[in-house]
Parts: sequence; C-alpha cells; structure tokens
Amino acid sequence: MPVTDIEWSASEKKIARAAFERAYEREIEALMAEVKARAVDLSDIEDLWRLHDYLSARRHEIDGKYDYRYTMLLFVFSQLVREGWLQIDELQGLEASKRSKVAALARM
Amino acid sequence: MPVTDIEWSASEKKIARAAFERAYEREIEALMAEVKARAVDLSDIEDLWRLHDYLSARRHEIDGKYDYRYTMLLFVFSQLVREGWLQIDELQGLEASKRSKVAALARM
Repeated sequence: MPVTDIEWSASEKKIARAAFERAYEREIEALMAEVKARAVDLSDIEDLWRLHDYLSARRHEIDGKYDYRYTMLLFVFSQLVREGWLQIDELQGLEASKRSKVAALARM
Repeated sequence: MPVTDIEWSASEKKIARAAFERAYEREIEALMAEVKARAVDLSDIEDLWRLHDYLSARRHEIDGKYDYRYTMLLFVFSQLVREGWLQIDELQGLEASKRSKVAALARM
C-alpha cells in the first residue's frame, strides 16, 4: 500500500497529533533561543539584515514542513526524526509498520 | 527651478552626505534597539512571526527611503526631518533656499 493511502485509527491519530505538536514546540523553542542569542549580539546593519534573512528562511521552511495531512504524516515524521526534533520512541502506539516506514524514510 | 533640478556645490555635497549618513545611523541604531528589546520579550511563535513581519516592513521602508540621488535629496531630507532622524540645523552650510525647501516639505 502506498505510504499516502495508510489508514489511521482514532488512537493513532491522537498519538500522531501529540508527537507532531511536541516536535513543533521543540523546534520553535530552539528557533526562539537562536533569535534571542543573535539579537543580543547585533552590532551593525549587516547583522540585522542577516537575522531578517535567517528568520525569512526558517519561517518558510517551518511553514512547509509541519503539514498535518494524514497522507503526508509519515514523510513529515521521518524528516522530524532525521532532524532530531522527534524520537522514533515517541511514535509508540502507532502500528509497527508505520514506525518502521518512518524509521526507513528517516535514514534516506 | 524644480526641486529635482537644483545644483549642489562640492561643499554642499559633503554636508549633505554627512547629514544623510548621520540620519541613517540614528535610524538603524533605533531599529537595532527595538529588535533587541522585542527579542528579549519573545514568548511564543506569534511574537516571533510578528518580529519577522516588523523587520520585513522596516527593511523595505528603509531601503526605499535612503535614496542618495541629488534629484531626490531635498525630499529625502524633508522626510528625515519630519520623522525626527535629522534636524534642520544639521543642514547648515547648504544654500538657504535648499534649507527652506526642506523645512517647507517637512511640514507637508
């Protein structure tokens, strides 16, 4: 069955939503910490525009990445695992086949 | 003579350049202070995206405003005076007619 056609039970949806939100919160926390650190060190206009460019790029990337459609979710989770925002263990409660797909995609 | 056709002597150009750069430095200093203050207070993602929107708008505005063409300079100075980044007194050494044009435009 293609990854995009996988069925999600009600309990899996709950686990998936919680994992998704946890990863998002972690990534946002890290981004806010980075922005605060860069802001403290601003010393000239180039620093300021670099901070703006950085925020533009991260916002675009985050807006695209956190796509909560069930057709996309295994891809999203695999990227979050690859990037370290989510641990495979946090998907406990999803079918084993889903978890192994995420793990396999994360290694690609 | 239209404002855009005014002649600038070498000494006036020097004074104009210094005034232009001083205003720019003041505005950038104020912007950096504002960004630092907002960054310290960031507490959620809406704050972060609001900071990004603010920086996008200010960058666009500043890029457009600081236009050092002699055809535009009296308009630029009048805006800087209106906004408080430059004092009329700092244009001392320009012809009186230029200073009075800047002052008149600044009041519009």
